[in-house]
Amino acid sequence: MTEHSLWRFSRALHRALNDRQPEDLAALLDEDVEWTIYGPIDMFPFLGGRRGKAAVLEVVRQIADNFRIHRFDRESIMLGVDSAASMLRYTLTALDSNKPISVRLAHFAQFKAGRLLNIRVLIDSFDLVEQALGRSIHLPKMVMPA
Amino acid sequence: MTEHSLWRFSRALHRALNDRQPEDLAALLDEDVEWTIYGPIDMFPFLGGRRGKAAVLEVVRQIADNFRIHRFDRESIMLGVDSAASMLRYTLTALDSNKPISVRLAHFAQFKAGRLLNIRVLIDSFDLVEQALGRSIHLPKMVMPA
Repeated sequence: MTEHSLWRFSRALHRALNDRQPEDLAALLDEDVEWTIYGPIDMFPFLGGRRGKAAVLEVVRQIADNFRIHRFDRESIMLGVDSAASMLRYTLTALDSNKPISVRLAHFAQFKAGRLLNIRVLIDSFDLVEQALGRSIHLPKMVMPA
Repeated sequence: MTEHSLWRFSRALHRALNDRQPEDLAALLDEDVEWTIYGPIDMFPFLGGRRGKAAVLEVVRQIADNFRIHRFDRESIMLGVDSAASMLRYTLTALDSNKPISVRLAHFAQFKAGRLLNIRVLIDSFDLVEQALGRSIHLPKMVMPA
């Protein structure tokens, strides 16, 4: 049984992010890879969509410039032949402020011949924003009277 | 081939939410079901965790009191024997303000004997908060100089 593409991709991504060694990741990206991380791009310009290997490597470099990953826990996972989805909790440091950030995300990924073809990542973005700001955003309670 | 538990669950959930007919949903919940929707519970008290059939039916009723679903598009899906994950885009109306809201979410679910055992839902929560407020929250740009 060969190793699932997700594990190779995950190792290569973390090597690119934390060790700034993007070579393994580059070899695992389809030339036309589609990459989307949904979230507030005004605050984090490296969120949003990218297309193609060069653009993805560039955005991974930007993420590496801003965060250091300390650990991640994969809370749920589903693997298909050429696809994978998981929910993870990441513990990061924002490098500008040295602020610790803990954020939950979910990804859906498709691979082709072992290379990443498409990934979409959803983040618990309000939680991320509050932690990056270092303060709570006051919210009115929005609920109909019982 | 029998229908996957996800489809029955999804129909029953939407019937409980939009038609306020929770009977089908009640029949598809394990007695000890674990239910979590990650998000800002200060603003939306029906987010967060619930345990057990009665608590889940009550929180579904609270969601039904606050929103009406107009449509949902399943953008990604993975099905296992007793598990399912998907990414969806919901178009809703907030009933207090009649405000249209479009929000992306991901769920991971586990079933046992056709009943929901566990579901965890992640929302693009910052996008949800801004739409529910009806205004943008000003965010500083958080990025290291290039």
